[in-house]
Amino acid sequence: MSDKLIIFDTTLRDGEQSPGASMTKDEKLRIARQLERLRVDVIEAGFAASSNGDFEAVKAIADHIKESTVCSLARANDRDISRAAEALKGAARSRIHTFIATSALHMEKKLRMTPDQVFEQAKLSVRFARNLTDDIEFSPEDGYRSDPDFLCRVLEAVIAEGATTINIPDTVGYAIPELYGNFIRHLRERIPNADKAVWSVHCHNDLGMAVANSLAGVKIGGARQIECTINGLGERAGNCSLEEVVMAVKTRRDYFGLEIGVDPSQIVPASRLVSQTTGFVVQPNKAVVGANAFAHASGIHQDGVLKARDTYEIMRAEDVGWTANKIVLGKLSGRNAFKQRLQELGIELDSEAEINAAFAKFKELADRKSDIFDEDILALVMDEAVTHEQEHYRLLALSQHSEMGERPHAKVAFSAGEQEMHAESDGNGPVDASLRAIESRVQSGAEMLLYSVNAITSGSTESQGEVTVRLQHGGRVVNGVGADPDIVVASAKAYLSALNKLHSKTERVAAQG
Amino acid sequence: MSDKLIIFDTTLRDGEQSPGASMTKDEKLRIARQLERLRVDVIEAGFAASSNGDFEAVKAIADHIKESTVCSLARANDRDISRAAEALKGAARSRIHTFIATSALHMEKKLRMTPDQVFEQAKLSVRFARNLTDDIEFSPEDGYRSDPDFLCRVLEAVIAEGATTINIPDTVGYAIPELYGNFIRHLRERIPNADKAVWSVHCHNDLGMAVANSLAGVKIGGARQIECTINGLGERAGNCSLEEVVMAVKTRRDYFGLEIGVDPSQIVPASRLVSQTTGFVVQPNKAVVGANAFAHASGIHQDGVLKARDTYEIMRAEDVGWTANKIVLGKLSGRNAFKQRLQELGIELDSEAEINAAFAKFKELADRKSDIFDEDILALVMDEAVTHEQEHYRLLALSQHSEMGERPHAKVAFSAGEQEMHAESDGNGPVDASLRAIESRVQSGAEMLLYSVNAITSGSTESQGEVTVRLQHGGRVVNGVGADPDIVVASAKAYLSALNKLHSKTERVAAQG
Repeated sequence: MSDKLIIFDTTLRDGEQSPGASMTKDEKLRIARQLERLRVDVIEAGFAASSNGDFEAVKAIADHIKESTVCSLARANDRDISRAAEALKGAARSRIHTFIATSALHMEKKLRMTPDQVFEQAKLSVRFARNLTDDIEFSPEDGYRSDPDFLCRVLEAVIAEGATTINIPDTVGYAIPELYGNFIRHLRERIPNADKAVWSVHCHNDLGMAVANSLAGVKIGGARQIECTINGLGERAGNCSLEEVVMAVKTRRDYFGLEIGVDPSQIVPASRLVSQTTGFVVQPNKAVVGANAFAHASGIHQDGVLKARDTYEIMRAEDVGWTANKIVLGKLSGRNAFKQRLQELGIELDSEAEINAAFAKFKELADRKSDIFDEDILALVMDEAVTHEQEHYRLLALSQHSEMGERPHAKVAFSAGEQEMHAESDGNGPVDASLRAIESRVQSGAEMLLYSVNAITSGSTESQGEVTVRLQHGGRVVNGVGADPDIVVASAKAYLSALNKLHSKTERVAAQG
Repeated sequence: MSDKLIIFDTTLRDGEQSPGASMTKDEKLRIARQLERLRVDVIEAGFAASSNGDFEAVKAIADHIKESTVCSLARANDRDISRAAEALKGAARSRIHTFIATSALHMEKKLRMTPDQVFEQAKLSVRFARNLTDDIEFSPEDGYRSDPDFLCRVLEAVIAEGATTINIPDTVGYAIPELYGNFIRHLRERIPNADKAVWSVHCHNDLGMAVANSLAGVKIGGARQIECTINGLGERAGNCSLEEVVMAVKTRRDYFGLEIGVDPSQIVPASRLVSQTTGFVVQPNKAVVGANAFAHASGIHQDGVLKARDTYEIMRAEDVGWTANKIVLGKLSGRNAFKQRLQELGIELDSEAEINAAFAKFKELADRKSDIFDEDILALVMDEAVTHEQEHYRLLALSQHSEMGERPHAKVAFSAGEQEMHAESDGNGPVDASLRAIESRVQSGAEMLLYSVNAITSGSTESQGEVTVRLQHGGRVVNGVGADPDIVVASAKAYLSALNKLHSKTERVAAQG
């Protein structure tokens, strides 16, 4: 058996299914580029048939990514599979990932189909896909809770039709390592043509065991592909964490004996990008990418680490892309230094105009903040790139005042297309007042689902604050991000950025009308 | 072998070792009471000999907790063990947990002792402890990386001396479920008196496998105690999560066949209390206690859940203490309704004066915010209880103004003991300006390690914001928490609350001096 372990990242598909994690095409493309730098083998870019937006995102990623295989999900029907193939047309390497549920519960309650109908549909779908591509992945949804006899019958048939990867999802996060590993081993032993496909694991973390289950699927079951997401993003408790599973295989090479193509030094940048884009914080005690993952507090441990590093450390922070928080640029840095730092950070801006805009914001920030860290630059560029997408609304001025015992009050000026708008309002706090002022003119009617603040650079209130606002309107959920040392200004920017996204979607829908 | 699985919570000891998670005596007592409501079997309350503060915290918990065994950590020496026994004197049931490192690396580099010296010290310490208590736990630190022959020799000796629990720590989070389970099984098979002790697992999460490793120690190894923490708090990537490991054993009773005394409906309240006290956020995709753990976003999943709940759910949100975010109180609610709600939330305020103070704050909040949620009440009471502890500094008035293009400016009035202080400052944002104003008068010289904002009630900026400020001064790290719908006011409260803690510690040290 091959000793190469394929890393299949599904941050942009299963990860995006987290409530509130939906991303725009440009955001997805930015993350896909970081995944390519991370050298994952396969990027699942989306579910092309699920919406026009998702189709466009898969297409953009297929058109731009050259190093990784680009994959689209598709239900087991001809329309979904055709749409996936169409979106993937421009890819250097592409894969169609088709699925249908095989557990008794899902077939009966959700699909309302008999096992024979599911068997036929699975077979015909893979046969159909085979005309469009020769890289086909098949997933029996809720596979781990499916009847093994029926599963063997389905999987043997789809391999015979040309499926090249067989993925066994633990859809509800119910598995235990030993049981999951043996489940896959038995399937592979029983299915006569099992060796014609690469076997894959896809685990959810509802009981906190997604990483261990995935690795048992590899070690005991003989799987050679792991499906995972950055920061373990994903519906409910999320998916297997890419950073954890990759570092486990690397750190315990003595046990696994497998090769991985991923470049671990890109893990922390990828984690930050996904966290900033979705507004999903990474808790400090998260393995590998949490702020405390490499920190030691107790006297006993500090003493140990000072005497011999490996007393308490099995990985090195540098290896996964943690660098000391160093001052990289300041007020006097020029455009070239800024541009070079962008390149070092792996940030690609598409045009000179974008670089100029980002540099202008950098100078503005440097006037107010003496030390500019990498995180500041990243936030600034994110902010720029996000608002740049479709900048219908733009903050022009904000002034606010609050005094204990009185209602806080805010005045805001912003542009809406060609128009300049002025508004004022009071509110429960200065942030609330500012957002109410904007809403009083825009009248979006959007519901706020989330308001969150992260300090971008560790430490004091001198830092920039990064605010994420999540709005819901007409069944659409969007995230807006804004960064500024003034938390009220950052909040107003985030709110306008979210409104821009709602506005651009409305325009697009109207245009398709 | 018993089918009872002992849950040993070490949130207050190993959890507190997270950089920045240090807690005051009152905070620890509050969490201990919640752990008692959660019905954990053993509460590790601290490390009595490590500081006077920790001694007092262990003592207070030992004096108040009646249902759970209260435990203190102690290095393997007579002084540490005596201090632990002294702190535990008032407990209904108590345990001394003594440890010494047994791995070659730790013995040589950290302890600078020979294996024979470590062997003798372990034996003599347990012998000493045996005179003080008959509930003794022994941990060979870095046990999983220790030489099995040497480990067998040490463990056989300490069991012969009277150790009743043997705990095998995976101190650096290096284990793999299969290997860790077999490691414990082999120890138990080889040690002749192994059946005289309960075996215990203690796993760290550096590779994301703490839960699976712990469960393999139980299933394969035959351990009957799991050491864990709320939210997986702990040094670096933290410890095994109590909520995950408990729900795994309960959800997969078919596989584990073990009984657990924990009341799962107290899990989410415990998670919130620990998160609010330490300022460590819980990421939304955290299993069991994350905000999204029971949320479904994708159309396919929603459809499935509507048709049959168990298509995508293996646990019920209600079972672990998630209740719908319901409006419980408003402007017109009286003192009795408020008091009753406190009781329902498991909040015990010590005196009528405390209830009155909390009720006054509640009315103040209700004037500004129409819907008061359980989280608001919890934050308000936490805020009250925290500031109540040693309220040297208290916020009297705050007024601030910011305008894009100008430096934000703040004026603050606060009391310091009997004195009233007024200060003003500008800053990078209104929060920065307010904190600079306070600092300009107090001149604490403290360094800010963390500034974080959480919305207390999900949703809009109408909610209260809860701010955590972490300060470091003279080697001490303290957290201050403040809540208010105005984020600037919440920040000033949090800063003063942190200063109060630094001040109270300074006073205490001075008094002892």
